[in-house]
Amino acid sequence: MRIFEEMESEVRGYIRSFPTVFDRAEGSELFDESGARFIDFFAGAGTLNYGHNNPIVTDAMIQYLQHKGILHGLDKATVAKRAFLQKFRDTILAPRDLKYKVQFTGPTGTNAVETALKLARMVKKRSNIISFTNGYHGLTMGALAATGNYFYKDESYGSRINTAFMPYDGFLGEGVDTIDYMRRFLADGSSGVDLPAAVIVETVQGEGGINVAGIEWLKNLQAVCREFDILLIVDDIQVGNGRTGTFFSFERAGIHPDMVCLSKSIGGGLPMALLLIRPELDQWQPGEHTGTFRGNNLAFVAATQTLRYWDNDDLVKAVAYKGDIIEKTLNKMVEDYPQLEPKVRGIGMVWGLEMAPGLAGEASRQAFARGLVIETAGANDQVLKFLPSLLIGEDILHEGLGIVRDCLALLVENQQSIMTGQ
Amino acid sequence: MRIFEEMESEVRGYIRSFPTVFDRAEGSELFDESGARFIDFFAGAGTLNYGHNNPIVTDAMIQYLQHKGILHGLDKATVAKRAFLQKFRDTILAPRDLKYKVQFTGPTGTNAVETALKLARMVKKRSNIISFTNGYHGLTMGALAATGNYFYKDESYGSRINTAFMPYDGFLGEGVDTIDYMRRFLADGSSGVDLPAAVIVETVQGEGGINVAGIEWLKNLQAVCREFDILLIVDDIQVGNGRTGTFFSFERAGIHPDMVCLSKSIGGGLPMALLLIRPELDQWQPGEHTGTFRGNNLAFVAATQTLRYWDNDDLVKAVAYKGDIIEKTLNKMVEDYPQLEPKVRGIGMVWGLEMAPGLAGEASRQAFARGLVIETAGANDQVLKFLPSLLIGEDILHEGLGIVRDCLALLVENQQSIMTGQ
Amino acid sequence: MRIFEEMESEVRGYIRSFPTVFDRAEGSELFDESGARFIDFFAGAGTLNYGHNNPIVTDAMIQYLQHKGILHGLDKATVAKRAFLQKFRDTILAPRDLKYKVQFTGPTGTNAVETALKLARMVKKRSNIISFTNGYHGLTMGALAATGNYFYKDESYGSRINTAFMPYDGFLGEGVDTIDYMRRFLADGSSGVDLPAAVIVETVQGEGGINVAGIEWLKNLQAVCREFDILLIVDDIQVGNGRTGTFFSFERAGIHPDMVCLSKSIGGGLPMALLLIRPELDQWQPGEHTGTFRGNNLAFVAATQTLRYWDNDDLVKAVAYKGDIIEKTLNKMVEDYPQLEPKVRGIGMVWGLEMAPGLAGEASRQAFARGLVIETAGANDQVLKFLPSLLIGEDILHEGLGIVRDCLALLVENQQSIMTGQ
Amino acid sequence: MRIFEEMESEVRGYIRSFPTVFDRAEGSELFDESGARFIDFFAGAGTLNYGHNNPIVTDAMIQYLQHKGILHGLDKATVAKRAFLQKFRDTILAPRDLKYKVQFTGPTGTNAVETALKLARMVKKRSNIISFTNGYHGLTMGALAATGNYFYKDESYGSRINTAFMPYDGFLGEGVDTIDYMRRFLADGSSGVDLPAAVIVETVQGEGGINVAGIEWLKNLQAVCREFDILLIVDDIQVGNGRTGTFFSFERAGIHPDMVCLSKSIGGGLPMALLLIRPELDQWQPGEHTGTFRGNNLAFVAATQTLRYWDNDDLVKAVAYKGDIIEKTLNKMVEDYPQLEPKVRGIGMVWGLEMAPGLAGEASRQAFARGLVIETAGANDQVLKFLPSLLIGEDILHEGLGIVRDCLALLVENQQSIMTGQ
Repeated sequence: MRIFEEMESEVRGYIRSFPTVFDRAEGSELFDESGARFIDFFAGAGTLNYGHNNPIVTDAMIQYLQHKGILHGLDKATVAKRAFLQKFRDTILAPRDLKYKVQFTGPTGTNAVETALKLARMVKKRSNIISFTNGYHGLTMGALAATGNYFYKDESYGSRINTAFMPYDGFLGEGVDTIDYMRRFLADGSSGVDLPAAVIVETVQGEGGINVAGIEWLKNLQAVCREFDILLIVDDIQVGNGRTGTFFSFERAGIHPDMVCLSKSIGGGLPMALLLIRPELDQWQPGEHTGTFRGNNLAFVAATQTLRYWDNDDLVKAVAYKGDIIEKTLNKMVEDYPQLEPKVRGIGMVWGLEMAPGLAGEASRQAFARGLVIETAGANDQVLKFLPSLLIGEDILHEGLGIVRDCLALLVENQQSIMTGQ
Repeated sequence: MRIFEEMESEVRGYIRSFPTVFDRAEGSELFDESGARFIDFFAGAGTLNYGHNNPIVTDAMIQYLQHKGILHGLDKATVAKRAFLQKFRDTILAPRDLKYKVQFTGPTGTNAVETALKLARMVKKRSNIISFTNGYHGLTMGALAATGNYFYKDESYGSRINTAFMPYDGFLGEGVDTIDYMRRFLADGSSGVDLPAAVIVETVQGEGGINVAGIEWLKNLQAVCREFDILLIVDDIQVGNGRTGTFFSFERAGIHPDMVCLSKSIGGGLPMALLLIRPELDQWQPGEHTGTFRGNNLAFVAATQTLRYWDNDDLVKAVAYKGDIIEKTLNKMVEDYPQLEPKVRGIGMVWGLEMAPGLAGEASRQAFARGLVIETAGANDQVLKFLPSLLIGEDILHEGLGIVRDCLALLVENQQSIMTGQ
Repeated sequence: MRIFEEMESEVRGYIRSFPTVFDRAEGSELFDESGARFIDFFAGAGTLNYGHNNPIVTDAMIQYLQHKGILHGLDKATVAKRAFLQKFRDTILAPRDLKYKVQFTGPTGTNAVETALKLARMVKKRSNIISFTNGYHGLTMGALAATGNYFYKDESYGSRINTAFMPYDGFLGEGVDTIDYMRRFLADGSSGVDLPAAVIVETVQGEGGINVAGIEWLKNLQAVCREFDILLIVDDIQVGNGRTGTFFSFERAGIHPDMVCLSKSIGGGLPMALLLIRPELDQWQPGEHTGTFRGNNLAFVAATQTLRYWDNDDLVKAVAYKGDIIEKTLNKMVEDYPQLEPKVRGIGMVWGLEMAPGLAGEASRQAFARGLVIETAGANDQVLKFLPSLLIGEDILHEGLGIVRDCLALLVENQQSIMTGQ
Repeated sequence: MRIFEEMESEVRGYIRSFPTVFDRAEGSELFDESGARFIDFFAGAGTLNYGHNNPIVTDAMIQYLQHKGILHGLDKATVAKRAFLQKFRDTILAPRDLKYKVQFTGPTGTNAVETALKLARMVKKRSNIISFTNGYHGLTMGALAATGNYFYKDESYGSRINTAFMPYDGFLGEGVDTIDYMRRFLADGSSGVDLPAAVIVETVQGEGGINVAGIEWLKNLQAVCREFDILLIVDDIQVGNGRTGTFFSFERAGIHPDMVCLSKSIGGGLPMALLLIRPELDQWQPGEHTGTFRGNNLAFVAATQTLRYWDNDDLVKAVAYKGDIIEKTLNKMVEDYPQLEPKVRGIGMVWGLEMAPGLAGEASRQAFARGLVIETAGANDQVLKFLPSLLIGEDILHEGLGIVRDCLALLVENQQSIMTGQ
């Protein structure tokens, strides 16, 4: 590990939470260089919905490399890109009656967000954007302006420009309709919140602590956007690709965003990002937003394979089934360990277990010691975040949940000392 | 091609300049799906210095995939990352007596730039940045603010914040010392150009039209930065990795930047980006700048292989040798076709042939029709840009240059009609 | 009137509402050049709390002019300025146990606001400011950023920078504690509303439509500011100088702002503005905020005279007495003309009568035709605004209110046609 | 003096340079409360071109007060305002064949500048503005962004937005055509300096150190503005009203700005400001830029009187005559005291004597001790600034210049100790 300390920037993070040198991975299992095995409840922060080194993906990649297929294509037409576009159209868009244009942005989520915000501003000729409390949209300057967490900001950045933050569903407490709150600001020409070009929203806030927006809230959000001629951008980077039970996370609410940001799992584990755009908004000049790696063809090959999981509804059923297991198990834990002040939130296969201050981090550390990789989320890392591969085996899922239960039991045992120790 | 028109955003660019569906590639040759062959003088805009599907890279990637090596690692420690760090330290940094810390940023050049600018601002507690005329640093909002070309901007973006543009070497005409110009602004507390956190500079402007900064200019730039306690950031994304004849483009000037942005060829064709930071500036909190794909391990595997080219000075010699061929050939063209008002600029294996308005684009189109992929650069696409793989064979290099010569001859023939046709 | 149309910018406003050429004025009466008399319920938008050409003020001014007293003093010490400072300290600050330092800013309200915001940011090293819905703080760029009304803004201004707008008391409807909402944004480090340097607030929003903040709301606002180490700035430009019944409008809530902006009536009708600053916040360098007219000595002379009204509590009693007359009369109108959907809001001698869309403007026009100058307020000019001189005679007050009643009666009569006519 | 120290903010400045309590003033003489006399070479930083308490102004003001003329009129039509407009049209605009519309802004220079910049941005729909090195345009946020001096800025202000600074005439040394440099930035779409809405310029920089732009430079500036469709705004606040020998300072260059900012002397010593606008640019909505004191009628009365000085060319001749005296006297000083490294710059009756570091401030202090009020200018207060009333008597002018000469002689005597003392 010494070379990482010697050479890598202090900014490194997960290496501190999960301090070992990883080597191989298959499905939901990671192995370090000593051969030690870890169950993965983290899934690359939502990038590995289809598991590590999924064989159908790996085989296609090897075959493509052996064929000497073009790897780096900028935005030239390639056979691999065409195959992806066809598959994406036929498997994802057409069955859902969606007619988006596809923009391949630089292959990171933050680039897809930057692209969406630029396009929205350009089309609407308005510079203001509405984002939500606890939203996370990336850390490059345009996306950072729409990200709530102050930890990522510095006064010297000047990042607070042209974004107004509105309360997410639940932010103002039970029973407060935060869309109504937002509507009052929009309806009053003297509210100080100028008419925005767009609203950007996650239907489930992952980094923000697994906050699930209600279906009515999402419908009302769309209605307000339509009423005031505001574009609705769904950032589906972390919770798209089936994470919530459907390919797009917004399907449950029956809404139809003007733009959708996709990244993480869309590339089957490789860097890739997409922006979906309603055709009438696709007002770019050729080359007006570019990026060297927007044509990562190996990712297109991988992506095309992962979309096969959407040829039928097996995956949807599996997510529902396993999500149910997680929910029930977590609810049981809540019942059994009230001393930890636990609260459960989630949908599909993204779940959060909020606990009293400091406990989630300790649970994560204890879990790692027992062979489980699980991270925390929320403004104060107060939430243990369950984000396993959608393809995880039922037995491994139970095994991982069992480790969490053991950790909670331990936390209760040690609670006195832990609470004091902070 | 129909599906690209139907489904892909209007923003697509190179597909318009090079309208065919590419399939395979090897070294400096591209093949479309009909099997037609194209010589590549474009090299993925500087991403493919080591050629397409370089066998040592491909073999290592396939082996890694077969081993089920971890692909997506966020910033966890992995065997592949360790190998890269060791190789980079031993082959690149140590022999040059450089002691940079390495930050793996999101795997795009623009992310490396954003990271550098954020860190500089945070460390210096100053928000101003100096960039240069015709500089290109990326299109996400933080990087866009430092990019000169107005084509990429829109009033609604608000992108002009906290950047002052200074004249690049040569911008004010022959014999004008633009560092002296900058120094006067910095020395005068009422100049309106507030003391910046950093200066960001390309030692050779690629997108800006192949403008090569002089050695004295670069030395003086560093001297001014030191004098006024300003950080010097070299954006070596396009012209690092040996493009100018040495691994880092700034080696020829003997300067020592405070930060260096690397991307493009560093990943051997896969998305990867690095920020090199003087150790005392590495003041990040853990996790303060993150990104899902900052641990693209397949790119680390590829990158480690490409660094083998720096084990000895063979590549340096080859670049000098082939660069000389390009320079001489271009100078001969200048001599032979004065009607095109040609000017040659360049260094190492990055060269530009500026021509009268409209001609460079026409030359590129004609070249493509003859089997050569070559792009244009400069604010008005007035420069034909020669950017072949550093490993290009001498025969293919000559073949490509011959195609260019044929196109120029044709341009001269048709000049009357072309000039009118605009 | 022709020369105004010929020569004056289209920006001119009140000349359109009150289209005559005014000549003289005394107390609460205006006379145009034909000798026609108008009662003044407008008082220079709050500048003439002590009436037009108050004899004690006028006499002192004439005497000063005859003495050849210094008129323009920048921030040099003068006899006139000293007299003002002594009187202000002895009559206003000392009896209220307030220990503010006094900064003479450029003699406009917007300059006092700009100064306060600059100082707050500089002292706290934070750029964010919280302002409130329907707040009005001026139209120069720094103040405009804290002003809610979109009418005053243009996308090209870039004025939305570093201000977050929070709901004013009542903005979200009856019974909603908007301070609690604000607290949630401040307490959550991921809310997107970064910790501000200061909150700027009017205790009664004049331009915003005569919105009176509750005492509890103001107390809670101060409590939240103290809790989060945020400076509290009260903009008392329109409703200070006794308008609400006490010299400072915040006295009724028993709060103690960190800074107070004063202008309008403080100069007895002449341009003058002050910023009051808690001594420990007075961290300016000499000359760091300046302005040519910050030493308007004729205004100091006038101001010193007006402060004599605060030597005893006669004015406080008079405001209470006459405010009561206004309130009762307006309530009677509400009762008598429900068809106009009237609502009454106010305190002291600042009152608003909100009516159905379009009616307030029509009432103002009709009143002018009957010899009463009264303006409208609110985002849609939906409020008739009663802002007479605090020294208005009881008979003139009744006369003016009678004219308003006549206008309302007329509105009811014509309502059908008016509502249709829009 | 104690009460100023006790009560006035630390921001107070001139009270420190000129530490006495002033009482009366006439013409070019000030008297403190002890009766001590001071000659005024400062003229209220350019506000008192027509002298202190000019009798024709004072008489008109007293008469107006006795008439109970309206003092505070917002933007209502008044007899006093009409008289000013007529006089301004007939005496100033018509004879110069200028057809400007007049906007009465808030009565401070900075407000006139803010108004001009807002209007330019709104009309052109571009947010960028070009200002010049050492320019001073005021300290409210919009104007501050165009002011060069870093002393007035703080990182927390975010004031560097949407302004690009170009080198003023002479900034880059003798013989460098800085308009040519600016043109290169404008002509190159990749220069990073986006096409601005407007250029704002002082034809003579007062605060910046008495820098006089050449006639060719001003003509070329106008030509570049016309060529690129950029509005030209002349800030004539300090050097308008005859200071340079003609009413407008730009008359000598025969240029015709799109907007002109006037303040300081236009109000005869009282707060007043104007923006002159080419009629086709007057695209304001009624009330879109307002301000409580934009109708300072007492200032209109004073202003109307001062314009009588422009009924014939007596004043123009007087300025030429006295300016010549100043110039010759200063040149003699330069000759006599080379040890002080003096340089003379100026035009009309605004002159600067630059000296070695620290000397100008010391000269000002010594002069005050000898009964002369004279201030410094320039980024480092390195320039002694001669700005007497245009109506100063020849004898007093000589007396004041004599005091300066005595101070310089003393400086030379003491130079050794002073230079060490810093």
